[in-house]
Amino acid sequence: MHDMQETTADRKSEHIDVVLQKDVRAKGITTGFERFSFDHVALPELNLDAIDLSCELWGRSLRSPLLIGSMTGGTESARTINLHLAEAAQELGIAMGVGSQRAAIEREDLAVTYQVRRVAPDILLFANLGAVQLNYGYGLDQARRAIDMLEADALFLHLNPLQEAVQPRGDRDWRNLYDKIAQLVHQLDVPVIAKEVGNGIDATTARRLAECGIAAIDVAGAGGTSWSEVEAYRQSDPLRRHVAHCFAGWGIPTALSLQLVRHAVPDLPVFASGGIRTGIDAAKAIALGAVLVGSAAPVLSAAIDRPQAVRDKFAAIAEELRIAAFCAGAGSLARLRNTPLRRTDTWESI
Amino acid sequence: MHDMQETTADRKSEHIDVVLQKDVRAKGITTGFERFSFDHVALPELNLDAIDLSCELWGRSLRSPLLIGSMTGGTESARTINLHLAEAAQELGIAMGVGSQRAAIEREDLAVTYQVRRVAPDILLFANLGAVQLNYGYGLDQARRAIDMLEADALFLHLNPLQEAVQPRGDRDWRNLYDKIAQLVHQLDVPVIAKEVGNGIDATTARRLAECGIAAIDVAGAGGTSWSEVEAYRQSDPLRRHVAHCFAGWGIPTALSLQLVRHAVPDLPVFASGGIRTGIDAAKAIALGAVLVGSAAPVLSAAIDRPQAVRDKFAAIAEELRIAAFCAGAGSLARLRNTPLRRTDTWESI
Amino acid sequence: MHDMQETTADRKSEHIDVVLQKDVRAKGITTGFERFSFDHVALPELNLDAIDLSCELWGRSLRSPLLIGSMTGGTESARTINLHLAEAAQELGIAMGVGSQRAAIEREDLAVTYQVRRVAPDILLFANLGAVQLNYGYGLDQARRAIDMLEADALFLHLNPLQEAVQPRGDRDWRNLYDKIAQLVHQLDVPVIAKEVGNGIDATTARRLAECGIAAIDVAGAGGTSWSEVEAYRQSDPLRRHVAHCFAGWGIPTALSLQLVRHAVPDLPVFASGGIRTGIDAAKAIALGAVLVGSAAPVLSAAIDRPQAVRDKFAAIAEELRIAAFCAGAGSLARLRNTPLRRTDTWESI
Amino acid sequence: MHDMQETTADRKSEHIDVVLQKDVRAKGITTGFERFSFDHVALPELNLDAIDLSCELWGRSLRSPLLIGSMTGGTESARTINLHLAEAAQELGIAMGVGSQRAAIEREDLAVTYQVRRVAPDILLFANLGAVQLNYGYGLDQARRAIDMLEADALFLHLNPLQEAVQPRGDRDWRNLYDKIAQLVHQLDVPVIAKEVGNGIDATTARRLAECGIAAIDVAGAGGTSWSEVEAYRQSDPLRRHVAHCFAGWGIPTALSLQLVRHAVPDLPVFASGGIRTGIDAAKAIALGAVLVGSAAPVLSAAIDRPQAVRDKFAAIAEELRIAAFCAGAGSLARLRNTPLRRTDTWESI
Ligand SMILES: Cc1cc2nc3c(=O)[nH]c(=O)nc-3n(C[C@H](O)[C@H](O)[C@H](O)COP(=O)(O)O)c2cc1C
Ligand SMILES: Cc1cc2nc3c(=O)[nH]c(=O)nc-3n(C[C@H](O)[C@H](O)[C@H](O)COP(=O)(O)O)c2cc1C
Ligand SMILES: Cc1cc2nc3c(=O)[nH]c(=O)nc-3n(C[C@H](O)[C@H](O)[C@H](O)COP(=O)(O)O)c2cc1C
Ligand SMILES: Cc1cc2nc3c(=O)[nH]c(=O)nc-3n(C[C@H](O)[C@H](O)[C@H](O)COP(=O)(O)O)c2cc1C
Repeated sequence: MHDMQETTADRKSEHIDVVLQKDVRAKGITTGFERFSFDHVALPELNLDAIDLSCELWGRSLRSPLLIGSMTGGTESARTINLHLAEAAQELGIAMGVGSQRAAIEREDLAVTYQVRRVAPDILLFANLGAVQLNYGYGLDQARRAIDMLEADALFLHLNPLQEAVQPRGDRDWRNLYDKIAQLVHQLDVPVIAKEVGNGIDATTARRLAECGIAAIDVAGAGGTSWSEVEAYRQSDPLRRHVAHCFAGWGIPTALSLQLVRHAVPDLPVFASGGIRTGIDAAKAIALGAVLVGSAAPVLSAAIDRPQAVRDKFAAIAEELRIAAFCAGAGSLARLRNTPLRRTDTWESI
Repeated sequence: MHDMQETTADRKSEHIDVVLQKDVRAKGITTGFERFSFDHVALPELNLDAIDLSCELWGRSLRSPLLIGSMTGGTESARTINLHLAEAAQELGIAMGVGSQRAAIEREDLAVTYQVRRVAPDILLFANLGAVQLNYGYGLDQARRAIDMLEADALFLHLNPLQEAVQPRGDRDWRNLYDKIAQLVHQLDVPVIAKEVGNGIDATTARRLAECGIAAIDVAGAGGTSWSEVEAYRQSDPLRRHVAHCFAGWGIPTALSLQLVRHAVPDLPVFASGGIRTGIDAAKAIALGAVLVGSAAPVLSAAIDRPQAVRDKFAAIAEELRIAAFCAGAGSLARLRNTPLRRTDTWESI
Repeated sequence: MHDMQETTADRKSEHIDVVLQKDVRAKGITTGFERFSFDHVALPELNLDAIDLSCELWGRSLRSPLLIGSMTGGTESARTINLHLAEAAQELGIAMGVGSQRAAIEREDLAVTYQVRRVAPDILLFANLGAVQLNYGYGLDQARRAIDMLEADALFLHLNPLQEAVQPRGDRDWRNLYDKIAQLVHQLDVPVIAKEVGNGIDATTARRLAECGIAAIDVAGAGGTSWSEVEAYRQSDPLRRHVAHCFAGWGIPTALSLQLVRHAVPDLPVFASGGIRTGIDAAKAIALGAVLVGSAAPVLSAAIDRPQAVRDKFAAIAEELRIAAFCAGAGSLARLRNTPLRRTDTWESI
Repeated sequence: MHDMQETTADRKSEHIDVVLQKDVRAKGITTGFERFSFDHVALPELNLDAIDLSCELWGRSLRSPLLIGSMTGGTESARTINLHLAEAAQELGIAMGVGSQRAAIEREDLAVTYQVRRVAPDILLFANLGAVQLNYGYGLDQARRAIDMLEADALFLHLNPLQEAVQPRGDRDWRNLYDKIAQLVHQLDVPVIAKEVGNGIDATTARRLAECGIAAIDVAGAGGTSWSEVEAYRQSDPLRRHVAHCFAGWGIPTALSLQLVRHAVPDLPVFASGGIRTGIDAAKAIALGAVLVGSAAPVLSAAIDRPQAVRDKFAAIAEELRIAAFCAGAGSLARLRNTPLRRTDTWESI
């Protein structure tokens, strides 16, 4: 059995199981959003019902600047999950990503497990491939197929060096990827967004990705789901498991990564994800400059269940965000983006 | 039953029950007073028995600069509470507020549940209305009735946007209130004080309230009773309960709000409340510039019991305040107000 | 019974019982010594056996700069305690104070419970009176009797405003004491040292005491025994007990008080006490400028037991101090006093 | 029995037992590495398999800059431990030290318990003697014998003043050692490295050791094994045990000592040890300037067991170091050494 070649779909299925059954949260590190607070505005001069959180991105209208994070595909249950996520996204008017589409590139019959346009005709929908695959035979053709199979609006290229490093048979050669990303970006006619998967993006990487023509960056910082933790639980070898667990506190906290990236590439749209758990986190992310705020793991169990459960989770986040904006005196995303935060330790305004 | 229109009095009664039975304290946030300490004065050059904490405000003499916070009215048990609070206030020579008088504006026969002048002829007594009601049909007439029914010395206009936002059927339109407040202030012949209910007041709001002619501001900051927590426990819908609980750490810590408001409107009297639990907290609030220091929730259960229990609670706070002033070398409120505090983390004097 | 006039000796006896049976340590405040550390010197260039911790003060030679804090007198068991403390002090060559001698001033036959010169002919011995007694009939005569009955080398005048404030029938008039202290100091021919009892001395008080001609200051700061806690446990009235407990965190941390006083009156000898528990604390106190370091409560139970137990406690502190000096590269008190400390939080040298 | 002269070998054997059976970790102090983090590099532009952690030191090639800390010798079981450590070191291409060779200097037949060249012909191997022995009859002759018996590449002179101070019959005269070290260094033809044993090296000591011609410094800072804790457990006298335990938090945190030494003697190679537990710690140590990173206690129980267990422990550290370098975007030690760290509290880059 151990000799059998593990398929990409098997791996995605194991990931789901581990995330649902183990504590895969980062340890010894937090998102950093708890370091900031809004000054409450006791007289907001707003109509709460008229708070406008809508925005437009790449031709799609969103009712809230929220994103259901890229998670799955490739198996029958993944198909159900994706459909449930998509129904909720459609109902709430928010964006959604699917998990890495490698399984469907390898086996075309698995494409159906990713396809959600039928139930979500209007959402901003993201295709997903691993950037490192560009070093392992992937290129323009595969990217186009990933986008087309989804009728996606944009493509997430995920960057997951730590996950690859701690998993058995991970892809270990990360050289020359900037050139290949730049080439791909220029050949594709949809926006390409670089995202991490839970360890964040630093200033230099942001600058170089911007030079490649990347349309946006999703920081996917540390403090939420830790992919070294997920891979640790998938390891049978105790030594390799130990090594993986070691990195539970690795990465750039989401709030810090957001600040670093915003400062490094002020003109590039930035998404915030990684450990976003409430609409208050989301509001702080927006005040720190994010245009879209994503959350993944917390919605997974709901997604297996039924679309209403997903909708409730994200409706709660949207409502918290709305109330946070209201109590911060911000009637729109534009206003929220210009609302100063205060450091909770020194009480200094930033 | 659920369809029945909940009355304002019902709501006030539920509030009392929740505050008594649940843990409605703010979570993940503190008043911030623990960040400061007095330099102990080992040789105070004072007669402890002669420490003078008396002050005058709007024609009333207070023996201590203390305020029993606005809480209730509208039901039979609220009436008892208010009478007990008032007896204690009269005996101790401190100020008192009643809860929002909306119930009695809606049903005149409920006025009696707020009326305490009979037992408290000499106290500084505050009427109470929600500022947002000015957007929902209230105006000069209602304000006058609130004041007159109490023979009040002044009117608290409370600002509670978070509470309104998280409660079912809360008042959600907070536009144009500054103008209406300004108008009301100029028409009334008693001082009008703006107060929050546990999330604090920021610098800008303070400045704009001052421009409206407000006579004082009660910061009612974060760190004590959390009204989103109270409303959370009143919610039957789990999603809305979740949303409300999310805000348990929202707001401006009382000590910070006090500093912000003092700095923004140095000439306006400021009251400190929200999480004041001891006379040492009160002394720090005064050193940070407060003219009156209020406390609400801790005295509630005592107030149901008997006036002596209320008196004991506030007598303890007054005695702690007196001893704190003594050991800080301050023989009067004026001296206490000029006593520097020290940051407990850096040991720097402020 | 409650009506009976409590005698001073009764009170001292109750103090001992409370300190032994209750947790009377300060709460929510520490000495602050944990904020500092020595840079370890891996090659100290010293002979550990030759480390010289001896010093001279007011004509007495000490083998270590240690002081057994003022504690008791007035009862039979206090007499035993004082004799045990004195035997240990004599054996170790360290200083000692007795408790307030008011009991023996009131009843001359109690003098014997304080007298230890027979067993401790060579020690630096401190008489003890409350400074506030100067407002209650005490003066030169009583001070002389206190010193003479002990054959003391110096007199501690203790300042305990918080203790007086929270105890029933405490002495509450602290006015005009500076003048009386100045007068007493000039009339007496032994050095007079002002000491607190666990809440510390601030800069202004230090400066004014220095102007009175005080020979030294013992900061007796916060972080060790709390006298409001002791008095809390002696209160039967729950309200007054509550008030007293409130002050468990009041005062200036010993390490901070030491810094403030050293800076305010750089030429005055300063003693450090209040929460000193190890020779490492003592070493830090000396590095911060103390000439003598005292400890009281930890030795109390040993003192009831037998002199050897006291000796062991202080011998341990002396040995820890010696080793700390050695590992800080300081072969003498003079060198230790010039050894920089480092802040444990920022790692900055002070 | 107590009168019998404890032999050096007995002592070493007791040390092993205590370290295995008691909690001898430092308390109330940490290495300080947790105060720093790397900025994760989401696109490292590296081939993980080609990350080059090899280095050369004094003619020996290392595959990783790791060092199995000096621990033991002198007994039969120590011989087994040393052989197991050496086999692992040889297999992994890392360095190794043996414990103090005093036992074998005293009794030549014990030399065999230290000799590991047979199983580790290629490793960088360190002899070990206590520097203070130079004050107790040791000199060039003993140093040469220690080096020769091991066919060592270099000699560790350990500095352990705290351990000597708290142990019974410890060596207490640490005067004039600099001169003797300088003389020894100039007479020997192998590099001599000064090391602490768990309390760190400060700036001044580093500078003076450099002036002696020392070839490198191993900071062996605080936060890992505490030798006062080890000695505490070897004490039967409760007072002396108490004194020893007092120093559980003494010393300079490893990360701080590393910074102090690097700054004081920028041209001298520095080793980091003391509490290094993971390859991430090791990576941070290298980023702070260390050329070699050592770990001792964690491998002890493995070493009694079998060489594979040791190899697994250090292979894990090496793999973690490799992955940390990869995710910090550093393909070589030289690059890692130039990688900035960030303070986890202020988020400032250093
Ligand atoms: C079960 C699961 C599967 C995931 N699979 C992918 C993936 O295939 N591609 C990707 O870019 N990110 C993937 N992610 C990462 C998320 O998109 C997100 O960046 C990360 O989980 C941090 O967000 P969180 O803390 O809200 O979970 C996955 C996350 C989860 C929980
Ligand atoms: C049971 C209860 C009812 C309250 N009702 C009112 C009210 O009607 N109007 C108002 O302005 N504040 C009301 N408050 C808020 C208090 O006046 C005060 O601002 C807040 O509780 C913070 O103070 P605390 O932490 O001391 O409780 C109420 C508080 C409590 C505990
Ligand atoms: C039982 C007991 C009795 C004390 N009595 C006196 C006293 O009579 N006079 C005085 O100046 N200080 C008295 N003190 C205070 C101590 O001298 C010392 O300042 C204080 O306890 C802080 O030191 P510690 O934390 O080491 O106990 C007493 C302390 C204790 C524990
Ligand atoms: C069992 C044991 C014995 C040791 N013996 C020696 C020794 O003989 N000579 C020496 O220089 N250091 C000795 N050390 C100290 C280590 O080399 C190292 O400096 C210290 O333990 C800190 O590293 P650690 O926290 O990784 O254990 C010993 C450590 C251990 C655990």
